[in-house]
Amino acid sequence: MIKEKVLQSVELLREFGVDCWITFTRESGINGDPCLPFLAPGELTWHSAFIISADGRRKAIVGRWDAQAIEETGAYDEVTGFVTSFKEPFQAYLKALNPARIAVNYSTSSEVCDGLTHGLYLTLVELLSAIGMADRLVSAEQIVSALRERKSAAEIARTREAVRVTEEIFALVRPVIQPGTTERAIAAFILAEMERRKSQTAWGQATCPSVFSGPDTAEAHYAPTGRTVKPGHLLNIDFGVRSDGYCSDLQRTYYLLRDGEATPPESICKALAAVTSALESARHAMKPGAQGIEVDTAARKAITRAGFEEFPHAVGHQVGRFVHDGNASLGPAWEKYGRRPFQRLEENMVFAVEPRVTVPGHGIVTIEEMVLVTRHGAEWISTPQKELLLVR
Amino acid sequence: MIKEKVLQSVELLREFGVDCWITFTRESGINGDPCLPFLAPGELTWHSAFIISADGRRKAIVGRWDAQAIEETGAYDEVTGFVTSFKEPFQAYLKALNPARIAVNYSTSSEVCDGLTHGLYLTLVELLSAIGMADRLVSAEQIVSALRERKSAAEIARTREAVRVTEEIFALVRPVIQPGTTERAIAAFILAEMERRKSQTAWGQATCPSVFSGPDTAEAHYAPTGRTVKPGHLLNIDFGVRSDGYCSDLQRTYYLLRDGEATPPESICKALAAVTSALESARHAMKPGAQGIEVDTAARKAITRAGFEEFPHAVGHQVGRFVHDGNASLGPAWEKYGRRPFQRLEENMVFAVEPRVTVPGHGIVTIEEMVLVTRHGAEWISTPQKELLLVR
Repeated sequence: MIKEKVLQSVELLREFGVDCWITFTRESGINGDPCLPFLAPGELTWHSAFIISADGRRKAIVGRWDAQAIEETGAYDEVTGFVTSFKEPFQAYLKALNPARIAVNYSTSSEVCDGLTHGLYLTLVELLSAIGMADRLVSAEQIVSALRERKSAAEIARTREAVRVTEEIFALVRPVIQPGTTERAIAAFILAEMERRKSQTAWGQATCPSVFSGPDTAEAHYAPTGRTVKPGHLLNIDFGVRSDGYCSDLQRTYYLLRDGEATPPESICKALAAVTSALESARHAMKPGAQGIEVDTAARKAITRAGFEEFPHAVGHQVGRFVHDGNASLGPAWEKYGRRPFQRLEENMVFAVEPRVTVPGHGIVTIEEMVLVTRHGAEWISTPQKELLLVR
Repeated sequence: MIKEKVLQSVELLREFGVDCWITFTRESGINGDPCLPFLAPGELTWHSAFIISADGRRKAIVGRWDAQAIEETGAYDEVTGFVTSFKEPFQAYLKALNPARIAVNYSTSSEVCDGLTHGLYLTLVELLSAIGMADRLVSAEQIVSALRERKSAAEIARTREAVRVTEEIFALVRPVIQPGTTERAIAAFILAEMERRKSQTAWGQATCPSVFSGPDTAEAHYAPTGRTVKPGHLLNIDFGVRSDGYCSDLQRTYYLLRDGEATPPESICKALAAVTSALESARHAMKPGAQGIEVDTAARKAITRAGFEEFPHAVGHQVGRFVHDGNASLGPAWEKYGRRPFQRLEENMVFAVEPRVTVPGHGIVTIEEMVLVTRHGAEWISTPQKELLLVR
């Protein structure tokens, strides 16, 4: 897949009119550029540069110990493994290449396009100043963004497999949810099922799975507690797995019936209807060319139209090698989201959509599904939750 | 431990004469600052700032979903959880604080002090420009470096535990090494023992453990191959575990006797003597106030004095939350090592020392041990390999 993505990047350089794209890193196990899995099979120790040119040349300059593994990807036509100095081979290659514009991985608006640390940026400026090229640096945001977002058939297949594993575990956890069980025990069951399948969690284990219940929950991004699951409460489970490098992210909502209750209270049923309607509204608004803000607005309106308070976050985000991936996002025009809600959707983007409604006295209704943008619209790649999962 | 390290950082701000230290991050699961494990118990999603002041004030501004977990560390006297805008609470707090110098996490010479991405640096400059403070930014390298390097008793205890687990697995793997076994099978055995102990690898699983043998090996940083272990060859195993966040890093060398051979060839015995002598020379040169380059030179001379070619890397590196940690390193004055070999050693630093000699026709002799810098010298925290581990 490395060779496939490196060749795709050559096409992107041509599309965006950039001569040369440099990914520059060191000790990538510590603060590696999120681009690296597309460019190299493992960690890089010393200063390393992957230099892709619009004319098709693909060069890697890496420490001697890392050279063999890079060569074997077949993605580069020249690999230099240095021992004492990165500077010499790097400056010599750039001088000969003489690119007019050099794109590097920084971005104020997208963390996945922002892999270059400020210290490495300063190092690069110094290296390029000495050969009169420091003023040629531009952001590689467009290139990196498209490389992550336009998923190949192989990348989509890996995502579907992650969704399949997640749904399989959701089916198994259902009988575990009983009044008196703790949030922590439910989370432990899910983690054990992931381990049995040798699946990694899609994000940090402290909150993956996230299990929260009742009206007093911290709601999300908070580790499962010793709180017991109680009749009359809503329970939410949010988790994903990483399968061959690609993530899933799904949420399901459960309701614990009280003694004598056959169906959930009216307020909860109304909340469920608002959330499922928001999900469908979002999917209908998704197609190549649409902006994320249009999708967020469609979902948000479905919630407020039903008389509920709007959710305090974007309705959706891209999913890829990270659970929050890509640049385009399905969000409102809030300052913290920057330009991301205004990016246009493209074919083969993968999103998670997660509207939410709080029901006073009971907890939260939140369902998260995954969607693939197709040529003319969008299709679910998870099996949407239509009804509350009832626990008697 | 978060509270302990945050309070230590207040002392460091006073020692280095900086009013305020800001760790600024977003989506820390993607390219999180390596400082974060000292400051927060889990991942941060939205723009987040940890603002420590020399006057003792400790403030966190984080997304609403992350606030509760940060509060519960007890390390901060004020936690703000925002929903739509990071900018407002951040600018308001800084305006009131009005620090003369603001240290942030970038460094050209040390990756563990270089957690701020260039995109976030630009964001910070923009946020601070609006309140007339952009020209107050300085590198936090000294603070971050000392915070990582001056290990507390609790941090040293965790490191010792990681070494203990590694040595336990080294003892178990010995009978597995037989002529005809593949490098990959040996690595798989070690990984399975780590999994059984629920230990993480100290670095990426592709090369941890690293198992390499014979005269044709890529030597290191290269995944174990299907090559079989052969009589007359040297075999090297390099691995470490992460125990409660703290790493070990040890290497051992084995020799496979040929039919009729009772001891290894003379050339290998001489190489072993040179390597063990280099290790002892390095440890003797280590004490508070010494420079890493002095330690490297002592070890390097032991190798060249014995008639071998010098090793093409620094003789040692610090170990901590990462297998390559800290700023001071035991290296030669090569350009790529920058100022690191000239930093002075301090009490409670932890190093791995790894001299190496190539023996033509047989492979490599390389032994790696771990050392703690004490008040007046340095002591092994691993049990040094004195003899080749012979396989009959």
